[in-house]
Amino acid sequence: MTTRIPGFRWAGIHCGIKKSGKPDLALLVADASVACAGVYTTNQIVAAPVVQSKVRLAGRHLAKVVVINSGNANACTGSRGEADARQMAAHSATIAGCQPIDVQVCSTGVIGAPLPMNLLESGIPKAYEALSEDGLAAFAEAICTTDTFAKVRSASAVIDGREIHVAGTSKGAGMIHPNMATMLGVIATDAPIAPAELDPLWRRVCQRTFNAITIDGDTSTNDTALILASGRAGGPNLEGSALDDFEVLLREVASELAKDIVRDAEGGTKVVQITVSGAASLGDACKAADAVSLSPLVKTAMHGEDPNWGRIIAAAGRSGATLDADALLLKMNDVVLYKDGVWQGTEAEAAAHDVMCQAEYSIELNLGLGSARRTVFTCDFSADYVRINADYRS
Amino acid sequence: MTTRIPGFRWAGIHCGIKKSGKPDLALLVADASVACAGVYTTNQIVAAPVVQSKVRLAGRHLAKVVVINSGNANACTGSRGEADARQMAAHSATIAGCQPIDVQVCSTGVIGAPLPMNLLESGIPKAYEALSEDGLAAFAEAICTTDTFAKVRSASAVIDGREIHVAGTSKGAGMIHPNMATMLGVIATDAPIAPAELDPLWRRVCQRTFNAITIDGDTSTNDTALILASGRAGGPNLEGSALDDFEVLLREVASELAKDIVRDAEGGTKVVQITVSGAASLGDACKAADAVSLSPLVKTAMHGEDPNWGRIIAAAGRSGATLDADALLLKMNDVVLYKDGVWQGTEAEAAAHDVMCQAEYSIELNLGLGSARRTVFTCDFSADYVRINADYRS
Repeated sequence: MTTRIPGFRWAGIHCGIKKSGKPDLALLVADASVACAGVYTTNQIVAAPVVQSKVRLAGRHLAKVVVINSGNANACTGSRGEADARQMAAHSATIAGCQPIDVQVCSTGVIGAPLPMNLLESGIPKAYEALSEDGLAAFAEAICTTDTFAKVRSASAVIDGREIHVAGTSKGAGMIHPNMATMLGVIATDAPIAPAELDPLWRRVCQRTFNAITIDGDTSTNDTALILASGRAGGPNLEGSALDDFEVLLREVASELAKDIVRDAEGGTKVVQITVSGAASLGDACKAADAVSLSPLVKTAMHGEDPNWGRIIAAAGRSGATLDADALLLKMNDVVLYKDGVWQGTEAEAAAHDVMCQAEYSIELNLGLGSARRTVFTCDFSADYVRINADYRS
Repeated sequence: MTTRIPGFRWAGIHCGIKKSGKPDLALLVADASVACAGVYTTNQIVAAPVVQSKVRLAGRHLAKVVVINSGNANACTGSRGEADARQMAAHSATIAGCQPIDVQVCSTGVIGAPLPMNLLESGIPKAYEALSEDGLAAFAEAICTTDTFAKVRSASAVIDGREIHVAGTSKGAGMIHPNMATMLGVIATDAPIAPAELDPLWRRVCQRTFNAITIDGDTSTNDTALILASGRAGGPNLEGSALDDFEVLLREVASELAKDIVRDAEGGTKVVQITVSGAASLGDACKAADAVSLSPLVKTAMHGEDPNWGRIIAAAGRSGATLDADALLLKMNDVVLYKDGVWQGTEAEAAAHDVMCQAEYSIELNLGLGSARRTVFTCDFSADYVRINADYRS
C-alpha cells in the first residue's frame, strides 16, 4: 500500500547529532498551511519545543511544517533551550516559506545537553532539498532513538464518495539513560476537515490509541502526537457520519502505530490487551486498567506465562476503583479464571497458561457493577527490561 | 539484647502446611486481654481473617491471642474461607481460655486453596504447649514465606522512670505465585498504655514505617500490622511527653522491621530512602514520593547505579504533585545533581554514581514550594526480581 498522502512531502536525513551516523533530522512540509491537531505530554516537566508547539496550535489548529530532531531532547536546558527551540522553528519557517507559528517542533534523545544548533542550521536546508512524496519511510527512520524498527502504517477508504488516505509513523516510549526516548506520533491525511473539527476528533482518537498504551508508566518530557490534514481528497469538509467513518479509519492507523510502540518496547516480549469492563464509572475502569497494566508483579507474571489471577485482582483491588470480590469475572481470551469470588481450578489455569504462551492475547476483568470500560495495551517485564534500563553508560 | 517482653509468651512450630517441613504456625499469647491496635490492608480484595480481625478490634482495642499460619493465605476462598478463619479463632480461644473476640488471626501463603483445618486443629494445641517468653525467634521463623531471613528487632528505654521494652517481628511484602507473601508485623511491649491511646499512636507509627515501604506497589489481600501492650512495666498509663517518648521508641523498632522487609525484598539489592521535601502539601509530597519510588525506570537505574536524574524528575512531574522545574533541587546523599532547572554536570553525576554504589543511600527531591515532606523506603529492580516473579511453578 502506498504511503503517499497528496499534499505532503517528507524527508529524513543525517545532520550529525547521532554519533552513529544514523538519520537524526526529519521534516514534513505541507503544500500550504493545513488543519493540524496535537496532543502533548501531561508531565509537568516539559521540554521547550513542546511548550512552544502547543502554544502555536492553540485556538487556530493550523500548521505547514513538522521538524523533528532525534539524538537530543532539548529538555531541562533552561532559557538556552527555549531560544534554541524557537530558532529551530524560525529557521524551518524561513526555508519552507511560512511563519514560525506554522511550525511544529519536536526533539527526542539525550536530556540536559544543549541542542547543536550549527548542525541543525546546516541540516534543515538539506532536509528540505530531500523532501519527497515518498519520504515517509525516511522520516520514520529519522525520528527513531532506541527503537529497533521504524514504524510506518497506512490505510485508505472511500468515505462520502471520496478516496481518503491516512499514513503516519510513531516511535518508542521506553527511556534509556541518558536518552529519554519520547513517544512521538505523526500522521498525515488528505481528508478535507475543518481545523476546529480535527482537534476534538484527534483527542478522542489519541485517548484510545497513543494514550492507551503503557510500557512502564513513565511519561516523558517530550511526548507529542500530531495529525495534519491537507484536504487534497477534495470536496467539502467531512461532516456527520462521514466524519465518524474518517475517525474509524484514523483510529485504525493510530492504533497500529501505538501497538507498534508496545511491540518494540525495550525488553518486552508480549503485547497484552487489558480491558476492565463492567465498571461503575469510566474513572473506575481507567484506574483499575492502569493498576493492572502497570503492576510489576502482573507484568513479570506475563513474562513467565503464569496465569496469576491473584496478582491481577489484587492490583485492581488496590487501584481505588470500586469493586466487589464476589462480582468479579476474570478471563484470558475466552478462559474464565476467577468467577463469583472463587478460583476456577487447575484446568482453567492450564488453559490460561496456553493463552499466555501466545505473543499477543487479551485479559478482561469484568467488575460486574456497571457498563463503563477501558482498554489499554501493555507489554511484559523481562529480565532484559532490567538489563537495558539498568546499564550505566560507560 | 533480650527479646523477652513481660506479659507475653510466643511459639513457632511446624504443623504440616508447608511441604518443606519448615515452621508454619505462630502463636502469641498475653497473660490477659491487653491493649491491642491493628493496621490492615487497604486492598478491596481482603482475605477472611483480615476482615474478621479488624471487626474484633474495632471500638475496643483489646486482644489476648495472635495466631498466624504461613503456607496458606485463606484468601479468595469464599464462604468456606470465612468459616475456616472463624474456626481458627474459636479453636485458639478455647485453648488459651478466652473469647474469640480476643483473638487476632492472620494467614499468609498460597491463595485460592482452602485452609487445611485438620492440621491447624492439631497444631494449635502443640503451639500452645511450646509457648515461651523466649519464643519470639521461633514465632518469627514461623510467619516467613518467601523471606530469606527471619526478622526480629527490639529496643528498650527508661521512660517516666520505668524501663519499657519493645520487641517484634515482620515478614516480607513481595509476592510469588502461587504465594501472595503478605506483609505482616507483630510487636509486643510492656508499656502501660490505654487501649484508646494505642490505636491512634500505632496508626501514626505505621504511616511512617510499615506504610512507608514500597517494593513493587502491590499490596496484598492479607497485610496486617499489630501491636499489643501488656502494661507489665507497671505504673499508671503513659501520658503527655512520656507517651511521645514511647512513640519514638516504638517507631525505632517498627522502622527497622519495615526496613528489614525492604532489605529482604525479592530480587532487591539496594535500600534507598526517598524523601520529597518542600512540597506545597503532604498530599503532593506523598504523590511525588510514591511516583519516584515505584517508577520501574528509576528502580532499574538504582540497580545500574546510574544517577539518572531525568527519570527521577520526570516521575515526579507525572505524579500529579504541583511542581515547577526551575524550583527543583535533587540530591543523592549530599551530591546536588539538578538545581534551578538545570543539570549540574558530569562531575556531579560521577559523585552521585559513587553514592549509588553503596548498599543503602538516600535521594532527596526538594520541590521548593512549601514545607511538607514524605520519606519512603524502597529497593531497586534487578533482573533477579523478574526471574523470581516470572517463574512459572512447574
